[in-house]
Amino acid sequence: MSPRTTDDHCYVGIDLGGTNVKVGIVNDAGRPLANLKRPTHSERGAEAGVANILRCVEDAVRQSGVKADAVRGIGVATPGTMDIPSGMMLRPHNLPGWNDVPIRDLIADHFGKPAFLQNDANAAAYGEYWVGAGRDSKSMVMWTLGTGIGCGIIIHDMIIEGEHSTGSECGHVVIEMDNGRYCDTGQYGTLEAYTGAKYFVQRALEALAAGRESSLREVIEAGDELTPLVISQAADAGDQLADDLIMDSARYMGIGTTTVMHTIDPDCVLLGGAMTFGRNETPLGRRFIERIREEVRRRAFPVPAAKTLIDYAQLGEEAGYIGAAGWARRKCGEGGACG
Amino acid sequence: MSPRTTDDHCYVGIDLGGTNVKVGIVNDAGRPLANLKRPTHSERGAEAGVANILRCVEDAVRQSGVKADAVRGIGVATPGTMDIPSGMMLRPHNLPGWNDVPIRDLIADHFGKPAFLQNDANAAAYGEYWVGAGRDSKSMVMWTLGTGIGCGIIIHDMIIEGEHSTGSECGHVVIEMDNGRYCDTGQYGTLEAYTGAKYFVQRALEALAAGRESSLREVIEAGDELTPLVISQAADAGDQLADDLIMDSARYMGIGTTTVMHTIDPDCVLLGGAMTFGRNETPLGRRFIERIREEVRRRAFPVPAAKTLIDYAQLGEEAGYIGAAGWARRKCGEGGACG
Repeated sequence: MSPRTTDDHCYVGIDLGGTNVKVGIVNDAGRPLANLKRPTHSERGAEAGVANILRCVEDAVRQSGVKADAVRGIGVATPGTMDIPSGMMLRPHNLPGWNDVPIRDLIADHFGKPAFLQNDANAAAYGEYWVGAGRDSKSMVMWTLGTGIGCGIIIHDMIIEGEHSTGSECGHVVIEMDNGRYCDTGQYGTLEAYTGAKYFVQRALEALAAGRESSLREVIEAGDELTPLVISQAADAGDQLADDLIMDSARYMGIGTTTVMHTIDPDCVLLGGAMTFGRNETPLGRRFIERIREEVRRRAFPVPAAKTLIDYAQLGEEAGYIGAAGWARRKCGEGGACG
Repeated sequence: MSPRTTDDHCYVGIDLGGTNVKVGIVNDAGRPLANLKRPTHSERGAEAGVANILRCVEDAVRQSGVKADAVRGIGVATPGTMDIPSGMMLRPHNLPGWNDVPIRDLIADHFGKPAFLQNDANAAAYGEYWVGAGRDSKSMVMWTLGTGIGCGIIIHDMIIEGEHSTGSECGHVVIEMDNGRYCDTGQYGTLEAYTGAKYFVQRALEALAAGRESSLREVIEAGDELTPLVISQAADAGDQLADDLIMDSARYMGIGTTTVMHTIDPDCVLLGGAMTFGRNETPLGRRFIERIREEVRRRAFPVPAAKTLIDYAQLGEEAGYIGAAGWARRKCGEGGACG
């Protein structure tokens, strides 16, 4: 631990999503001093969107009470596609029209501070690695379960960002080579094609169409939308189909986790994101992760199967901006770019 | 490049296999100054086996003409299972009975030089990364196709050895989750269960049992053994089943390669080992790798699919000991342990 008081240095973390942008001021120990969350308004385009982000940063710095020169660096996490070395967003799926935006340099130039771009799932993983559920880990994999299946891999304080900025995209590992489900990203038989929110609902609809009995049928007949939340509530209420669908998702996640364990062999695998069914706080969440562990024990080599911690992430929605700030801190420490 | 003459420093590389041990003296530029290959005689047990290795090293140093104090360090590559941090072989599948052998320290103590243990497939990958087909690569994955499907991953001069010494075991990624083939290592539906030598032959036998016409049937009826070499010769001679079996292997390798690309995103993927069908030297070898590339183009994200080099390794049988020596050089440079 540094003997300095933690307010001497701080970092800005930005987590840009399709719906909201989250910004936090994070001190050298990983504690948020201030944070805010505002609509991205992606439909207004990149220029207005970036101006909005800059205002968010200014407001968060003001809120935190830190002096501007205490901010050493700024981390910005965005969804892909992106080119990390040049700091560019390329064609982000969740931000239509925000193409070829040099977001890193726009932010750096505006504030006169070093800025660092990172993939959003990687940033969330880095946040957990720095001060979350992975803080005692040397090498870590984190899944983010939501619309897509995000993944971030950290090995010995290094993010696996890849040579074409598509490292750690383990939601797209193949789990079923023949007759695999189709994913909108253009892949077949991948983990995301089974467990992403849309495909989770698809599996429910297919089971209903095949005649499975379930309370979910009433939802549809009432004209309501079938969502992961609705399915999860039905499972909580004892619906067998809903429960099966969730346990199947756990099985798929266990298979993908085995593949990543046989590649990276981390000491810790975490699960975060919206589709984690209440995590360790609910019986369903506990059964979900236990089913993942069971599948890993069945498939992985005995030593990593026994020794690798598999658990839920801890930082929730804050993982992204904390990780982005932590990554700025890490890069500042590395290159001396931050004075 | 260092201004020193390359003979100032050299490294010993040991590649210990179930059948043979290969030892080389490698200079600072990765050039072998001497090398030898002798039977391992694993059936004589670990104590006699280690004594044999020590004699091999002494003979190779003598052959090379370098002075003993020019040797800075010794790298030793062994098959798993192993514990890399403690320098132990645990229960190597190919060396029955060589259990819990502290091979790194036995070698280091005998020669009074720092020694470093590494997994054999990782060492071969590191050899190619240092001075072989991956020498211009930043991040690299190398498959070694043989009895098993070995894999080595190098990212920015770091070998992914994992937290339990089971990193880079990508032969055991899952490619078919349900009804997958069984692999003797205890896994189901993994890449090795389809493409390892034994399973390659199994697929041939199954196709024959299912009534496929093929010249391979005559091999069996003549009482000869069906081997990968025999199948490959039949394919060369125009046998359609043999050709299909090899192209199916290529398809499986393309699927496994896609999974690893979506995890690591290297700039280079290499194929080495015995089951590479003549490599770029033969029409069959060229079609084999082209079929792998085709499968990757079909399945991987467009940017890495277009930009990742997929090719054959170059160092052949020498990759292992050159890589072991290179890894000793790398570790010597890192820690100052080598004076």
